[in-house]
Amino acid sequence: MELLSHVAQEVQNQTGIRLHRRNVERVFSAILRTGDFWKIVDFSDLPVPAVAAIVKKLISENILFVDEEENILLTQKGYDLVRELGIKPAGNFLCVACEGRGYPFYADKEFYRTFIELAKDRPSAIRDYDQGSVTPETTVSRVLFMDVRGDLRGRDILVMGAEDDLTGLAVALTRKAKSVLILDIDKRLIDYDNKIFKELGIENAQAKVWDLRKPFPEDMLARFDVFVTDPPETFAAFKAFIGRGIATLKESGCAGYFGLTLRDSSIFRWKEFQQILLTDYGTVITDIIQNFNHYMNWEYHPQTKAAQIAPVKKNPTDIWYRSAWYRVETLPGFKRWNEPISDEVFYLDEEGSTT
Amino acid sequence: MELLSHVAQEVQNQTGIRLHRRNVERVFSAILRTGDFWKIVDFSDLPVPAVAAIVKKLISENILFVDEEENILLTQKGYDLVRELGIKPAGNFLCVACEGRGYPFYADKEFYRTFIELAKDRPSAIRDYDQGSVTPETTVSRVLFMDVRGDLRGRDILVMGAEDDLTGLAVALTRKAKSVLILDIDKRLIDYDNKIFKELGIENAQAKVWDLRKPFPEDMLARFDVFVTDPPETFAAFKAFIGRGIATLKESGCAGYFGLTLRDSSIFRWKEFQQILLTDYGTVITDIIQNFNHYMNWEYHPQTKAAQIAPVKKNPTDIWYRSAWYRVETLPGFKRWNEPISDEVFYLDEEGSTT
Repeated sequence: MELLSHVAQEVQNQTGIRLHRRNVERVFSAILRTGDFWKIVDFSDLPVPAVAAIVKKLISENILFVDEEENILLTQKGYDLVRELGIKPAGNFLCVACEGRGYPFYADKEFYRTFIELAKDRPSAIRDYDQGSVTPETTVSRVLFMDVRGDLRGRDILVMGAEDDLTGLAVALTRKAKSVLILDIDKRLIDYDNKIFKELGIENAQAKVWDLRKPFPEDMLARFDVFVTDPPETFAAFKAFIGRGIATLKESGCAGYFGLTLRDSSIFRWKEFQQILLTDYGTVITDIIQNFNHYMNWEYHPQTKAAQIAPVKKNPTDIWYRSAWYRVETLPGFKRWNEPISDEVFYLDEEGSTT
Repeated sequence: MELLSHVAQEVQNQTGIRLHRRNVERVFSAILRTGDFWKIVDFSDLPVPAVAAIVKKLISENILFVDEEENILLTQKGYDLVRELGIKPAGNFLCVACEGRGYPFYADKEFYRTFIELAKDRPSAIRDYDQGSVTPETTVSRVLFMDVRGDLRGRDILVMGAEDDLTGLAVALTRKAKSVLILDIDKRLIDYDNKIFKELGIENAQAKVWDLRKPFPEDMLARFDVFVTDPPETFAAFKAFIGRGIATLKESGCAGYFGLTLRDSSIFRWKEFQQILLTDYGTVITDIIQNFNHYMNWEYHPQTKAAQIAPVKKNPTDIWYRSAWYRVETLPGFKRWNEPISDEVFYLDEEGSTT
């Protein structure tokens, strides 16, 4: 069997993550741009356990090797193979002004500056809740994006299970929403937000502790114009965060925003998520912006499965974990999913590794 | 019945275009930003016949009026209504550097300059084939986007039914693809491309006249890594362009790029297109970038249904027709659709109006 297919199949058998030969090709393409394992993951758009297993397999085949500084490099055999297969590195053109999002975080400098100032004392990300904050530029861009799409001014907005990013705080800071409700399981974040709302006299926003595994009470359904969230990539969490978010929307033409990554979930699973969005929930996808969300490195990284299965011990030195930003809209006949969710497989499954 | 719902339902009955109340709300929101009918269409993200009928209905209800310069404005009754319903204009923050695409057309200045120079003598858009060219900045950004996603260098690329945008020419100009095949029904464009390839000594690209309504011969199937197209938004054209594009792809993990607009198709139809992509064709959607494609005004505009049904006679003075840029990837088990397509309803149906 051809090498790329062979590696894809072997790693799939070993990890349980579905792969095809072009996923392996993409890892080679990434290695032509960087020797840093975490950047290779970033450029490969694959779950960490898949990239780790592919790299280890290729090291064992003498196609890759690790140098003294823990860079992953092609051997002569590797170079010959890449040339034979015609694999090339991808181009590297992202807009430096907006970091490739299309929405410039610096558009409202005063807002950006205020948010940075308020965010600097935020509680640090903790592992219990799969936290890992996005950069302030990401959070601010999310809010601008919502505004451009008509989902901010005069809207009732629910921000849930993503307050480690302070997205709800940023939405409230604009003072353009009609109301903002922030739900998060982490009391530290809720207290942080409420303290700021009180200090700044923001009266149309409140934050409450809530566990999204529980169904919403009746009065939360059909109450919002917009929801924003950022779930772990398990099916259980997808339902608890996104299914439940959709349940809170008032009517057709309301919007939901959420992140989905390919670092903790495969493209195969993305297809299943998309089918759930269209068929089970009755929404339409209006936007998918790759690499919109840039996550800062989290202190608990060395304790994660990702760090443990990596082929090198070196920690990430730069941003490597990114996710796409989705926007969906409800259409007539959309479903309000609001069942309880069990603890099992909520944060982590075979494709995930960073929690 | 509440006014927005009432207007939505009446216009739906009249035009056959599915609408919900928030579609009408969005038209009001657009009118808070501009009085220009074509910009209202742009900001409303609705098919032209829907916006035209909504505006006419609201004029007849004394909610809107048209001033001497053919601007569409709110009456006092209209202002009172907008205030009562809490409708606000959307924010206006797009990255000026990359025009909101995330991929900066100026990244490779020499490439951009060469393309502009070569494009200046291109054949003008003609109505027979639903032509309307995108801006040179759009075409160049498409190529950079492909390069960033690993879909340019060393790839066999098919560009079909979109050569009024000279996308195939731009791909070939980079000299980074392995091969480029350009298919278009318009012999003028094909001759234009082939002449340039000959002059510049580009030997890995060729252009051929082809009518996409016909099935591809066997040797075209499973032959390309990437296809690029820009279909009219009818179901028949969607199949002929995108179904057939997918049929030409070699294997899992190959990519397709195409534009879809909300100016000639409703969000309801988008959902149906997305379901076809996922379920019938077996692809996954990796990117949807709204307003990526900016179309220059076409000389035949005054003859279109759009111009005839518009509530004002004034022609567009600026870019108003935009489309989203989709990227899809094939997954194992994807389908190669390659049936013949009849002439009926190919370019125009109840939601379309610009051809």
